[in-house]
Amino acid sequence: MTLDELKDLVAEFSQVRDWERFHTPKNLVMALMGEVGELAEIFQWLTPEESQAICSGDDERIKVEHEVADVFIYLLRLATVLDIDLATAVQGKLAVNDERYPVGLARGRATKYSELG
Amino acid sequence: MTLDELKDLVAEFSQVRDWERFHTPKNLVMALMGEVGELAEIFQWLTPEESQAICSGDDERIKVEHEVADVFIYLLRLATVLDIDLATAVQGKLAVNDERYPVGLARGRATKYSELG
Amino acid sequence: MTLDELKDLVAEFSQVRDWERFHTPKNLVMALMGEVGELAEIFQWLTPEESQAICSGDDERIKVEHEVADVFIYLLRLATVLDIDLATAVQGKLAVNDERYPVGLARGRATKYSELG
Amino acid sequence: MTLDELKDLVAEFSQVRDWERFHTPKNLVMALMGEVGELAEIFQWLTPEESQAICSGDDERIKVEHEVADVFIYLLRLATVLDIDLATAVQGKLAVNDERYPVGLARGRATKYSELG
Repeated sequence: MTLDELKDLVAEFSQVRDWERFHTPKNLVMALMGEVGELAEIFQWLTPEESQAICSGDDERIKVEHEVADVFIYLLRLATVLDIDLATAVQGKLAVNDERYPVGLARGRATKYSELG
Repeated sequence: MTLDELKDLVAEFSQVRDWERFHTPKNLVMALMGEVGELAEIFQWLTPEESQAICSGDDERIKVEHEVADVFIYLLRLATVLDIDLATAVQGKLAVNDERYPVGLARGRATKYSELG
Repeated sequence: MTLDELKDLVAEFSQVRDWERFHTPKNLVMALMGEVGELAEIFQWLTPEESQAICSGDDERIKVEHEVADVFIYLLRLATVLDIDLATAVQGKLAVNDERYPVGLARGRATKYSELG
Repeated sequence: MTLDELKDLVAEFSQVRDWERFHTPKNLVMALMGEVGELAEIFQWLTPEESQAICSGDDERIKVEHEVADVFIYLLRLATVLDIDLATAVQGKLAVNDERYPVGLARGRATKYSELG
Protein backbone atom coordinates (compact mmCIF):
# COMPACT_ATOMS: atom_id res chain seq x y z
CA MET A 1 0.00 0.00 0.00
CA THR A 2 1.20 3.51 -0.75
CA LEU A 3 1.26 6.31 1.81
CA ASP A 4 -1.75 7.95 0.17
CA GLU A 5 -3.69 4.67 0.27
CA LEU A 6 -2.87 4.28 3.95
CA LYS A 7 -3.98 7.86 4.60
CA ASP A 8 -7.28 7.10 2.86
CA LEU A 9 -7.77 3.84 4.75
CA VAL A 10 -7.29 5.60 8.06
CA ALA A 11 -9.46 8.55 7.00
CA GLU A 12 -12.29 6.23 6.00
CA PHE A 13 -12.06 4.40 9.33
CA SER A 14 -12.65 7.75 11.10
CA GLN A 15 -15.32 8.99 8.73
CA VAL A 16 -17.70 6.03 9.05
CA ARG A 17 -17.45 6.41 12.82
CA ASP A 18 -18.01 10.17 12.64
CA TRP A 19 -14.77 10.75 14.53
CA GLU A 20 -13.44 13.55 12.39
CA ARG A 21 -14.86 16.20 14.69
CA PHE A 22 -12.32 15.12 17.33
CA HIS A 23 -9.39 15.33 14.94
CA THR A 24 -8.10 18.86 15.35
CA PRO A 25 -4.32 18.97 14.92
CA LYS A 26 -4.01 19.66 18.63
CA ASN A 27 -5.99 16.57 19.61
CA LEU A 28 -4.11 14.40 17.15
CA VAL A 29 -0.77 15.52 18.58
CA MET A 30 -2.01 14.57 22.06
CA ALA A 31 -3.15 11.19 20.75
CA LEU A 32 0.28 10.74 19.18
CA MET A 33 1.85 11.42 22.58
CA GLY A 34 -0.43 8.87 24.21
CA GLU A 35 0.64 6.19 21.78
CA VAL A 36 4.35 7.00 21.96
CA GLY A 37 3.93 6.79 25.74
CA GLU A 38 2.52 3.27 25.35
CA LEU A 39 5.51 2.37 23.20
CA ALA A 40 7.82 3.77 25.89
CA GLU A 41 6.15 1.61 28.52
CA ILE A 42 7.12 -1.54 26.63
CA PHE A 43 10.79 -0.61 26.63
CA GLN A 44 11.27 1.43 29.77
CA TRP A 45 12.83 -1.20 32.06
CA LEU A 46 14.68 -3.13 29.37
CA THR A 47 18.43 -3.01 28.87
CA PRO A 48 19.60 -2.04 25.36
CA GLU A 49 20.21 -5.75 24.65
CA GLU A 50 16.77 -6.80 25.88
CA SER A 51 15.25 -4.07 23.72
CA GLN A 52 16.95 -5.56 20.66
CA ALA A 53 15.53 -9.01 21.48
CA ILE A 54 12.01 -7.73 22.01
CA CYS A 55 10.55 -9.12 18.84
CA SER A 56 11.81 -12.64 19.25
CA GLY A 57 8.75 -13.76 21.21
CA ASP A 58 5.44 -13.87 19.35
CA ASP A 59 3.31 -12.12 21.95
CA GLU A 60 5.82 -9.37 22.35
CA ARG A 61 6.13 -8.93 18.62
CA ILE A 62 2.40 -8.44 18.18
CA LYS A 63 2.25 -5.97 21.03
CA VAL A 64 5.11 -3.88 19.64
CA GLU A 65 3.67 -3.98 16.12
CA HIS A 66 0.31 -2.78 17.41
CA GLU A 67 1.85 0.15 19.26
CA VAL A 68 4.01 1.15 16.30
CA ALA A 69 0.90 0.94 14.13
CA ASP A 70 -1.00 3.17 16.57
CA VAL A 71 1.68 5.84 16.33
CA PHE A 72 1.73 5.65 12.54
CA ILE A 73 -2.06 5.77 12.27
CA TYR A 74 -2.23 9.03 14.20
CA LEU A 75 0.68 10.42 12.20
CA LEU A 76 -1.20 9.61 8.99
CA ARG A 77 -4.31 11.37 10.37
CA LEU A 78 -2.27 14.41 11.38
CA ALA A 79 -0.62 14.57 7.96
CA THR A 80 -4.05 14.35 6.30
CA VAL A 81 -5.59 17.06 8.48
CA LEU A 82 -2.57 19.35 8.00
CA ASP A 83 -2.34 18.49 4.28
CA ILE A 84 1.26 17.33 4.56
CA ASP A 85 2.77 14.92 2.07
CA LEU A 86 4.85 12.65 4.30
CA ALA A 87 7.29 11.45 1.62
CA THR A 88 8.03 15.01 0.50
CA ALA A 89 8.37 16.14 4.11
CA VAL A 90 10.90 13.39 4.91
CA GLN A 91 12.98 14.10 1.83
CA GLY A 92 12.94 17.83 2.59
CA LYS A 93 14.00 17.34 6.19
CA LEU A 94 16.80 14.94 5.24
CA ALA A 95 18.11 17.58 2.85
CA VAL A 96 18.13 20.09 5.73
CA ASN A 97 19.83 17.54 7.97
CA ASP A 98 22.43 16.79 5.30
CA GLU A 99 23.61 20.38 5.63
CA ARG A 100 23.25 20.41 9.39
CA TYR A 101 25.17 17.15 9.85
CA PRO A 102 27.68 16.84 7.00
CA VAL A 103 29.03 13.30 6.79
CA GLY A 104 32.60 14.40 7.43
CA LEU A 105 31.75 16.16 10.70
CA ALA A 106 28.83 14.06 11.97
CA ARG A 107 30.26 10.60 11.42
CA GLY A 108 30.01 8.46 14.53
CA ARG A 109 29.19 11.34 16.82
CA ALA A 110 25.93 11.76 18.71
CA THR A 111 25.78 15.14 20.32
CA LYS A 112 23.26 15.57 23.11
CA TYR A 113 20.92 17.35 20.72
CA SER A 114 21.66 15.50 17.54
CA GLU A 115 18.76 14.14 15.62
CA LEU A 116 18.47 11.73 12.78
CA GLY A 117 15.46 13.50 11.37
CA MET B 1 8.32 7.17 -2.81
CA THR B 2 7.17 3.93 -1.24
CA LEU B 3 7.49 3.15 2.45
CA ASP B 4 10.36 0.78 1.77
CA GLU B 5 12.18 3.42 -0.28
CA LEU B 6 11.73 5.91 2.55
CA LYS B 7 13.04 3.35 5.05
CA ASP B 8 16.09 2.82 2.84
CA LEU B 9 16.68 6.56 2.41
CA VAL B 10 16.63 7.09 6.16
CA ALA B 11 18.77 3.98 6.77
CA GLU B 12 21.38 5.20 4.32
CA PHE B 13 21.45 8.62 5.97
CA SER B 14 22.33 6.92 9.28
CA GLN B 15 24.78 4.43 7.82
CA VAL B 16 27.06 6.93 6.09
CA ARG B 17 27.25 8.83 9.37
CA ASP B 18 27.91 5.67 11.35
CA TRP B 19 24.91 6.42 13.57
CA GLU B 20 23.47 2.95 13.62
CA ARG B 21 25.21 2.09 16.87
CA PHE B 22 22.94 4.58 18.62
CA HIS B 23 19.77 3.13 17.14
CA THR B 24 18.68 0.55 19.65
CA PRO B 25 14.87 0.33 19.79
CA LYS B 26 15.00 1.93 23.23
CA ASN B 27 16.97 4.95 22.00
CA LEU B 28 14.75 5.34 18.95
CA VAL B 29 11.61 5.39 21.12
CA MET B 30 13.20 8.15 23.23
CA ALA B 31 14.08 10.08 20.08
CA LEU B 32 10.47 9.65 18.93
CA MET B 33 9.33 11.13 22.23
CA GLY B 34 11.67 14.09 21.81
CA GLU B 35 10.24 14.87 18.39
CA VAL B 36 6.60 14.46 19.43
CA GLY B 37 7.43 16.82 22.29
CA GLU B 38 8.67 19.41 19.77
CA LEU B 39 5.43 18.98 17.85
CA ALA B 40 3.47 19.49 21.08
CA GLU B 41 5.36 22.73 21.75
CA ILE B 42 4.07 24.20 18.50
CA PHE B 43 0.46 23.58 19.43
CA GLN B 44 0.38 23.78 23.21
CA TRP B 45 -1.00 27.30 23.69
CA LEU B 46 -3.20 27.37 20.58
CA THR B 47 -6.97 27.12 20.66
CA PRO B 48 -8.48 24.33 18.52
CA GLU B 49 -9.29 26.95 15.85
CA GLU B 50 -5.77 28.39 15.87
CA SER B 51 -4.41 24.85 15.56
CA GLN B 52 -6.48 24.35 12.39
CA ALA B 53 -5.10 27.56 10.89
CA ILE B 54 -1.49 26.70 11.69
CA CYS B 55 -0.46 25.94 8.16
CA SER B 56 -1.77 29.10 6.60
CA GLY B 57 1.43 31.03 7.19
CA ASP B 58 4.53 29.91 5.26
CA ASP B 59 6.99 29.92 8.15
CA GLU B 60 4.61 28.02 10.34
CA ARG B 61 3.92 25.51 7.63
CA ILE B 62 7.60 24.72 7.16
CA LYS B 63 8.14 24.37 10.88
CA VAL B 64 5.23 21.96 11.29
CA GLU B 65 6.27 19.94 8.24
CA HIS B 66 9.78 19.60 9.61
CA GLU B 67 8.56 18.36 12.97
CA VAL B 68 6.12 15.90 11.42
CA ALA B 69 8.98 14.69 9.21
CA ASP B 70 11.19 14.23 12.27
CA VAL B 71 8.60 12.02 13.92
CA PHE B 72 8.14 9.97 10.76
CA ILE B 73 11.88 9.58 10.21
CA TYR B 74 12.38 8.05 13.65
CA LEU B 75 9.31 5.86 13.17
CA LEU B 76 10.81 4.59 9.90
CA ARG B 77 14.10 3.85 11.71
CA LEU B 78 12.29 2.05 14.51
CA ALA B 79 10.30 -0.04 12.02
CA THR B 80 13.51 -0.94 10.19
CA VAL B 81 15.37 -1.92 13.35
CA LEU B 82 12.40 -3.96 14.63
CA ASP B 83 11.75 -5.41 11.15
CA ILE B 84 8.17 -4.18 11.10
CA ASP B 85 6.30 -3.63 7.84
CA LEU B 86 4.41 -0.41 8.54
CA ALA B 87 1.65 -0.92 5.96
CA THR B 88 0.92 -4.43 7.20
CA ALA B 89 0.99 -3.24 10.81
CA VAL B 90 -1.51 -0.46 10.12
CA GLN B 91 -3.90 -2.75 8.29
CA GLY B 92 -3.64 -5.34 11.05
CA LYS B 93 -4.32 -2.81 13.79
CA LEU B 94 -7.29 -1.31 11.93
CA ALA B 95 -8.76 -4.81 11.70
CA VAL B 96 -8.38 -5.18 15.47
CA ASN B 97 -9.94 -1.74 15.97
CA ASP B 98 -12.81 -2.58 13.67
CA GLU B 99 -13.84 -5.27 16.14
CA ARG B 100 -13.08 -3.11 19.16
CA TYR B 101 -15.03 -0.12 17.84
CA PRO B 102 -17.85 -1.46 15.62
CA VAL B 103 -19.34 1.34 13.54
CA GLY B 104 -22.77 0.95 15.09
CA LEU B 105 -21.51 1.39 18.64
CA ALA B 106 -18.57 3.74 18.14
CA ARG B 107 -20.17 6.28 15.83
CA GLY B 108 -19.70 9.82 17.06
CA ARG B 109 -18.50 8.79 20.49
CA ALA B 110 -15.04 9.45 21.87
CA THR B 111 -14.55 7.62 25.11
CA LYS B 112 -11.76 8.87 27.32
CA TYR B 113 -9.60 5.96 26.20
CA SER B 114 -10.78 5.56 22.66
CA GLU B 115 -8.18 5.45 19.98
CA LEU B 116 -8.33 5.81 16.26
CA GLY B 117 -5.46 3.42 15.77
CA MET C 1 4.79 16.07 53.64
CA THR C 2 7.87 17.89 52.44
CA LEU C 3 9.53 17.21 49.09
CA ASP C 4 12.36 15.35 50.81
CA GLU C 5 9.91 13.19 52.74
CA LEU C 6 8.10 12.37 49.51
CA LYS C 7 11.42 11.51 47.85
CA ASP C 8 12.21 9.17 50.74
CA LEU C 9 8.78 7.56 50.65
CA VAL C 10 9.12 6.81 46.95
CA ALA C 11 12.73 5.64 47.38
CA GLU C 12 11.74 3.23 50.13
CA PHE C 13 8.91 1.83 47.99
CA SER C 14 11.51 0.97 45.31
CA GLN C 15 14.16 -0.32 47.70
CA VAL C 16 12.01 -2.93 49.44
CA ARG C 17 11.04 -4.24 46.01
CA ASP C 18 14.65 -4.23 44.82
CA TRP C 19 13.65 -2.03 41.89
CA GLU C 20 16.53 0.38 42.08
CA ARG C 21 18.53 -1.54 39.52
CA PHE C 22 16.00 -0.46 36.89
CA HIS C 23 16.19 3.20 37.83
CA THR C 24 18.88 4.59 35.61
CA PRO C 25 18.10 8.22 34.64
CA LYS C 26 17.40 7.02 31.11
CA ASN C 27 14.83 4.45 32.23
CA LEU C 28 13.18 6.92 34.58
CA VAL C 29 12.81 9.47 31.78
CA MET C 30 11.13 6.77 29.65
CA ALA C 31 8.83 5.91 32.56
CA LEU C 32 8.00 9.61 32.87
CA MET C 33 7.15 9.60 29.15
CA GLY C 34 4.83 6.64 29.65
CA GLU C 35 2.95 8.33 32.45
CA VAL C 36 2.61 11.70 30.70
CA GLY C 37 1.26 9.70 27.76
CA GLU C 38 -1.41 8.19 30.02
CA LEU C 39 -2.30 11.68 31.21
CA ALA C 40 -2.56 12.81 27.57
CA GLU C 41 -4.95 9.95 26.81
CA ILE C 42 -7.41 11.24 29.40
CA PHE C 43 -7.58 14.67 27.79
CA GLN C 44 -6.93 14.02 24.11
CA TRP C 45 -10.49 14.16 22.78
CA LEU C 46 -11.85 16.73 25.23
CA THR C 47 -12.61 20.33 24.34
CA PRO C 48 -10.91 22.96 26.51
CA GLU C 49 -14.17 23.35 28.44
CA GLU C 50 -14.57 19.62 28.98
CA SER C 51 -10.97 19.49 30.19
CA GLN C 52 -11.79 22.11 32.83
CA ALA C 53 -14.77 20.08 34.05
CA ILE C 54 -12.83 16.83 34.24
CA CYS C 55 -12.64 16.67 37.98
CA SER C 56 -16.29 17.21 38.67
CA GLY C 57 -17.10 13.51 38.50
CA ASP C 58 -15.67 11.27 41.23
CA ASP C 59 -14.38 8.48 39.01
CA GLU C 60 -12.75 10.92 36.70
CA ARG C 61 -11.19 12.81 39.56
CA ILE C 62 -9.57 9.68 40.99
CA LYS C 63 -8.25 8.65 37.60
CA VAL C 64 -6.69 12.05 36.96
CA GLU C 65 -5.21 12.21 40.45
CA HIS C 66 -3.63 8.79 39.99
CA GLU C 67 -2.04 9.76 36.70
CA VAL C 68 -0.74 13.06 38.05
CA ALA C 69 0.66 11.13 41.02
CA ASP C 70 2.37 8.67 38.67
CA VAL C 71 4.13 11.51 36.85
CA PHE C 72 5.19 13.10 40.13
CA ILE C 73 6.43 9.80 41.58
CA TYR C 74 8.78 9.24 38.65
CA LEU C 75 9.91 12.85 38.78
CA LEU C 76 10.76 12.40 42.47
CA ARG C 77 12.73 9.24 41.62
CA LEU C 78 14.58 11.01 38.82
CA ALA C 79 15.43 13.94 41.09
CA THR C 80 16.72 11.52 43.74
CA VAL C 81 18.85 9.54 41.30
CA LEU C 82 20.27 12.73 39.73
CA ASP C 83 20.67 14.39 43.15
CA ILE C 84 18.54 17.38 42.19
CA ASP C 85 16.79 19.50 44.78
CA LEU C 86 13.42 20.17 43.14
CA ALA C 87 12.58 23.34 45.08
CA THR C 88 15.96 24.89 44.31
CA ALA C 89 15.68 23.84 40.67
CA VAL C 90 12.24 25.46 40.30
CA GLN C 91 13.35 28.70 41.89
CA GLY C 92 16.46 28.79 39.73
CA LYS C 93 14.53 28.19 36.53
CA LEU C 94 11.91 30.83 37.39
CA ALA C 95 14.75 33.32 37.87
CA VAL C 96 16.04 32.44 34.39
CA ASN C 97 12.52 32.75 32.99
CA ASP C 98 12.04 36.08 34.68
CA GLU C 99 14.84 37.46 32.51
CA ARG C 100 13.68 35.58 29.43
CA TYR C 101 10.07 36.73 29.77
CA PRO C 102 10.09 40.13 31.47
CA VAL C 103 6.60 41.02 32.66
CA GLY C 104 6.41 44.10 30.46
CA LEU C 105 7.12 42.18 27.27
CA ALA C 106 5.59 38.80 28.03
CA ARG C 107 2.27 39.89 29.47
CA GLY C 108 -0.65 38.15 27.79
CA ARG C 109 1.42 36.76 24.95
CA ALA C 110 2.05 33.11 24.31
CA THR C 111 4.61 32.67 21.59
CA LYS C 112 4.75 29.29 19.92
CA TYR C 113 7.73 28.36 22.03
CA SER C 114 6.96 30.19 25.20
CA GLU C 115 7.16 28.24 28.38
CA LEU C 116 6.01 28.87 31.87
CA GLY C 117 8.89 26.95 33.35
CA MET D 1 9.93 25.58 50.25
CA THR D 2 6.78 23.53 50.69
CA LEU D 3 4.76 22.18 47.77
CA ASP D 4 2.06 24.77 48.39
CA GLU D 5 4.62 27.58 48.41
CA LEU D 6 6.05 26.31 45.13
CA LYS D 7 2.55 26.14 43.65
CA ASP D 8 1.98 29.76 44.71
CA LEU D 9 5.33 30.89 43.31
CA VAL D 10 4.58 29.35 39.94
CA ALA D 11 0.99 30.67 39.99
CA GLU D 12 2.18 34.19 40.69
CA PHE D 13 4.71 33.97 37.84
CA SER D 14 1.82 33.21 35.47
CA GLN D 15 -0.59 35.74 36.92
CA VAL D 16 1.64 38.80 36.56
CA ARG D 17 2.19 37.82 32.93
CA ASP D 18 -1.52 37.25 32.35
CA TRP D 19 -0.78 33.71 31.19
CA GLU D 20 -3.53 31.96 33.06
CA ARG D 21 -5.87 32.10 30.10
CA PHE D 22 -3.59 29.60 28.34
CA HIS D 23 -3.55 27.19 31.25
CA THR D 24 -6.43 24.87 30.58
CA PRO D 25 -5.62 21.35 31.82
CA LYS D 26 -5.35 20.22 28.21
CA ASN D 27 -2.77 22.87 27.33
CA LEU D 28 -0.80 22.18 30.48
CA VAL D 29 -0.63 18.47 29.67
CA MET D 30 0.69 19.36 26.21
CA ALA D 31 3.27 21.66 27.78
CA LEU D 32 4.25 18.81 30.11
CA MET D 33 4.69 16.63 27.02
CA GLY D 34 6.95 19.24 25.45
CA GLU D 35 9.19 19.44 28.49
CA VAL D 36 9.47 15.68 29.00
CA GLY D 37 10.39 15.53 25.32
CA GLU D 38 13.25 17.98 25.97
CA LEU D 39 14.39 15.81 28.87
CA ALA D 40 14.30 12.76 26.58
CA GLU D 41 16.48 14.56 24.03
CA ILE D 42 19.26 14.95 26.59
CA PHE D 43 19.36 11.21 27.29
CA GLN D 44 18.29 9.61 24.03
CA TRP D 45 21.68 8.59 22.65
CA LEU D 46 23.39 7.89 25.96
CA THR D 47 24.19 4.42 27.26
CA PRO D 48 22.82 3.61 30.74
CA GLU D 49 26.30 4.31 32.15
CA GLU D 50 26.62 7.63 30.36
CA SER D 51 23.17 8.57 31.67
CA GLN D 52 24.35 7.95 35.23
CA ALA D 53 27.38 10.21 34.69
CA ILE D 54 25.35 13.02 33.16
CA CYS D 55 25.57 15.36 36.10
CA SER D 56 29.31 15.19 36.56
CA GLY D 57 29.96 18.08 34.17
CA ASP D 58 28.76 21.51 35.23
CA ASP D 59 27.13 22.54 31.97
CA GLU D 60 25.31 19.26 31.72
CA ARG D 61 24.15 19.46 35.30
CA ILE D 62 22.60 22.88 34.79
CA LYS D 63 20.89 21.79 31.60
CA VAL D 64 19.38 18.70 33.25
CA GLU D 65 18.29 20.68 36.32
CA HIS D 66 16.56 23.23 34.11
CA GLU D 67 14.65 20.58 32.20
CA VAL D 68 13.62 18.74 35.36
CA ALA D 69 12.49 22.09 36.77
CA ASP D 70 10.45 22.76 33.61
CA VAL D 71 8.61 19.47 34.01
CA PHE D 72 7.95 20.12 37.70
CA ILE D 73 6.76 23.68 37.06
CA TYR D 74 4.10 22.53 34.63
CA LEU D 75 3.11 19.70 36.97
CA LEU D 76 2.65 22.26 39.76
CA ARG D 77 0.49 24.39 37.46
CA LEU D 78 -1.58 21.39 36.42
CA ALA D 79 -2.08 20.36 40.06
CA THR D 80 -3.16 23.92 40.91
CA VAL D 81 -5.62 24.18 38.03
CA LEU D 82 -7.07 20.72 38.79
CA ASP D 83 -7.05 21.40 42.55
CA ILE D 84 -4.93 18.33 43.28
CA ASP D 85 -2.83 18.06 46.43
CA LEU D 86 0.35 16.44 45.14
CA ALA D 87 1.51 14.97 48.45
CA THR D 88 -1.87 13.37 49.10
CA ALA D 89 -2.03 12.10 45.53
CA VAL D 90 1.39 10.46 45.81
CA GLN D 91 0.59 8.78 49.10
CA GLY D 92 -2.72 7.56 47.74
CA LYS D 93 -1.19 6.11 44.61
CA LEU D 94 1.60 4.39 46.56
CA ALA D 95 -1.08 2.73 48.70
CA VAL D 96 -2.77 1.45 45.53
CA ASN D 97 0.59 0.26 44.20
CA ASP D 98 1.38 -1.47 47.47
CA GLU D 99 -1.59 -3.75 46.83
CA ARG D 100 -0.85 -4.08 43.14
CA TYR D 101 2.81 -4.93 43.67
CA PRO D 102 3.11 -6.69 47.03
CA VAL D 103 6.73 -6.84 48.15
CA GLY D 104 6.79 -10.62 48.14
CA LEU D 105 5.68 -10.91 44.52
CA ALA D 106 7.16 -7.76 43.00
CA ARG D 107 10.65 -7.95 44.47
CA GLY D 108 13.32 -7.61 41.76
CA ARG D 109 10.92 -8.08 38.88
CA ALA D 110 10.09 -5.47 36.31
CA THR D 111 7.21 -6.57 34.17
CA LYS D 112 6.80 -4.81 30.87
CA TYR D 113 3.98 -2.73 32.35
CA SER D 114 5.19 -2.39 35.88
CA GLU D 115 5.26 1.07 37.30
CA LEU D 116 6.84 2.57 40.35
CA GLY D 117 4.07 5.05 40.76
